[in-house]
Amino acid sequence: MEKHRLPDTPFWVDPESVASDHLTLSPEESHHLLRVHRAREGTPFEAVDGRGNFYRCSVRSVERRAVIGKILARAQDVGELRRPVEILVGMPDWGPLEQIVAHGVPLGVSQFDFVRCARSTGTVLGAQRLARLDRLARAGLKQSRRTRLPAMRSSASLEEAVAAALEGTRLVAHPNAAGTGFPPSDEVQGSFSLAVGPPGGFSAEEYEFLRSERFQPISLGPSRLTTETASITLIGLARNALQSSDLRVH
Amino acid sequence: MEKHRLPDTPFWVDPESVASDHLTLSPEESHHLLRVHRAREGTPFEAVDGRGNFYRCSVRSVERRAVIGKILARAQDVGELRRPVEILVGMPDWGPLEQIVAHGVPLGVSQFDFVRCARSTGTVLGAQRLARLDRLARAGLKQSRRTRLPAMRSSASLEEAVAAALEGTRLVAHPNAAGTGFPPSDEVQGSFSLAVGPPGGFSAEEYEFLRSERFQPISLGPSRLTTETASITLIGLARNALQSSDLRVH
Repeated sequence: MEKHRLPDTPFWVDPESVASDHLTLSPEESHHLLRVHRAREGTPFEAVDGRGNFYRCSVRSVERRAVIGKILARAQDVGELRRPVEILVGMPDWGPLEQIVAHGVPLGVSQFDFVRCARSTGTVLGAQRLARLDRLARAGLKQSRRTRLPAMRSSASLEEAVAAALEGTRLVAHPNAAGTGFPPSDEVQGSFSLAVGPPGGFSAEEYEFLRSERFQPISLGPSRLTTETASITLIGLARNALQSSDLRVH
Repeated sequence: MEKHRLPDTPFWVDPESVASDHLTLSPEESHHLLRVHRAREGTPFEAVDGRGNFYRCSVRSVERRAVIGKILARAQDVGELRRPVEILVGMPDWGPLEQIVAHGVPLGVSQFDFVRCARSTGTVLGAQRLARLDRLARAGLKQSRRTRLPAMRSSASLEEAVAAALEGTRLVAHPNAAGTGFPPSDEVQGSFSLAVGPPGGFSAEEYEFLRSERFQPISLGPSRLTTETASITLIGLARNALQSSDLRVH
């Protein structure tokens, strides 16, 4: 591998650091661009702001350790699915939770909600843990060349989570929904709101509540999946449905 | 959580340790059953042999630290997909490789082949690393309540891997196959042979070779996925296709 190759991953830029013809990288991103990639005046790079904007730039100058980039081209919603995909996950332990974010961000999730359920062992995520997930999501966003940073929530109850959930196609992974797989592309509409139980599953009452809120129970297959494997699989199925249907991304 | 609850995960039994009416657990599995689950004579447990057999048993006796179980009932292919799903993965680093096995086993993969490709950094997996993956697969098999242990291979070249690949539906994840998603359930036939490139992707020659071997290029969506995320997603799509199609598992 070349040592001085151009960065193939975009840099993060805060939306408020973007002007009409130039943008300013944070000292941390600037350091990465200047030291790791040995950028100098004129070096091309790309940037994303987490709100759907993608910028093609070149280094114009360095002021007080911050790279000023000249904006050469802009694009909107690069790498994004045509419709939002949200997922409610019954709170698992921290390791599985990180895995869901690490795979779910590149797969296009627009909102994660880690929900305290009857069988969750952990408690609601505090600001510090949400901030850690946010950093993980940022890294995944850049790596996967997406442009919209997903929202991170942690609801104290399933009721609270469902109240904030999208309309559209609502699906819940259910171990006893044998034979009822993911709906075919021509049956899904608009955005996805997905739900996966905590380790041990949703309680009977929770399944009933989800059903009353129009979450359709589907089976993910004949063997038992962990919360993290089920979540990643369900996200992948929603992603594929969005690209296979009329909502196809061009 | 109860302290003495019955094991909800089957125990491993070697096929040669199964007689017509009883079976013998290894000292390690016996220790787990006796110490962790505090089993005694008459305690019910389940066992799998990795070759498709599932046994419902009760502890008959303990001889020289090995549990002898009376076989109460047998079942075949519990937790298995109706058809095999094999995956060739361009060799990633060890961490991603473990993730692919950890998620892929519960999802029903019948064979993993980690293949040395033009852009692979690592070398072919030796016996010791394959044995480590085998142990990981066993744990996943028990946890997910499957019964057939997937095969683990590591081919020295893509040619070698494809020569050993199943006929049936052959698919390769391709970053430039925009708009061509996973084929609908009524277009897939029989078993799946899936292929995912190493970090950096298959080379142009490798894609061409796969295409000449009837691997149909499909897109996994508009953003860039790592080898491990792409692998898990593709396996999940194949799994769903097998349960949604006429090959549905009852």
